[in-house]
Amino acid sequence: MSPRTGRRAGESGTRQAILEAARERFAALGYDAASVRGIARRAGVDAALVHHFFGSKERLFAAAVGFPAAPSEVLRDVAGESGLPDGASLVRALLAVWDDEEAGARFVALVRSAVANDDAMAMLREFLTATVLAAVSARIADGDGRLRASLVAGQILGLALTRHVLRLPAVAAAPPELLAAAVGPTIDRYLGGDLAGG
Amino acid sequence: MSPRTGRRAGESGTRQAILEAARERFAALGYDAASVRGIARRAGVDAALVHHFFGSKERLFAAAVGFPAAPSEVLRDVAGESGLPDGASLVRALLAVWDDEEAGARFVALVRSAVANDDAMAMLREFLTATVLAAVSARIADGDGRLRASLVAGQILGLALTRHVLRLPAVAAAPPELLAAAVGPTIDRYLGGDLAGG
Repeated sequence: MSPRTGRRAGESGTRQAILEAARERFAALGYDAASVRGIARRAGVDAALVHHFFGSKERLFAAAVGFPAAPSEVLRDVAGESGLPDGASLVRALLAVWDDEEAGARFVALVRSAVANDDAMAMLREFLTATVLAAVSARIADGDGRLRASLVAGQILGLALTRHVLRLPAVAAAPPELLAAAVGPTIDRYLGGDLAGG
Repeated sequence: MSPRTGRRAGESGTRQAILEAARERFAALGYDAASVRGIARRAGVDAALVHHFFGSKERLFAAAVGFPAAPSEVLRDVAGESGLPDGASLVRALLAVWDDEEAGARFVALVRSAVANDDAMAMLREFLTATVLAAVSARIADGDGRLRASLVAGQILGLALTRHVLRLPAVAAAPPELLAAAVGPTIDRYLGGDLAGG
């Protein structure tokens, strides 16, 4: 075995140890209370190495539980001038992530375990609240930020379920552009439209 | 034991036998292929008695799997002149069903088992396709009926999940009228609006 192969195998083992420690700590403490430092300690490595491998607590969580991307990075990539995501761009970005075979399979497994299991659901709720809902609602001035962000989460969850879990044929087979055009305006309205008026 | 109590206990036992036979047949054959006649035969009763107790195959399925109401009856109750449901009325009617404690708990259990289990999911897909999607899309003339009805199903599923399973606080605590005003127009647009244009 060459030294290079040996080092790669060592890195891969360390990553696995960190991911296992992360899964254990996030499950035991929840997303907010688990710390990168505590996860590093449990994995027997320095916290700086966890940051080197994963970049952020959000990315570490995503990698550990099978979330296909760090949600606040997806949101940042599709933000318009207001800092809020453009609905059609958000749908397009999400479909690209879900439609990737490997990431999509992990995501379906995550949704299934979360829906079936109260603890996994609580962890997912805390993660979404700390990242997506906080980031989006902080940019909405009218006091309805949490409701608006949660309505968006519901529409996205429903789209994911009908396309990838329930697999209703008309949605499962629809081209991404069609879904972006159909669902994007719903998201724009939930974020910035008149919720009470229609 | 008075004869009256005895008859009631007998009726209740017969109902249970029919429901058990229905669960077994729907699981084995799917919604379309299972027949009221076959379910009656398995329960050892006459098909007329099944109709007497449950009224229709759709209602029997709903009672057997824990669906809180016969979906096409909910749709009929909130139909406007076009025969299509009015979005806000539909949301209001669904929330009334889900918010009922007992029916709500059965519904959450159903959603969980369907998301966790491929066979239960296939059965639910077939049921929704045969009842809701067929009824709604038959009333839409532009050829996008299945997609429109499926988008509505996704939005409703996402609302149910964020309110009753994921329980995002802003949606879980929202008064029904607020959700009807917020989500109703989404459903109206999916059913009758311009999907490509925004």
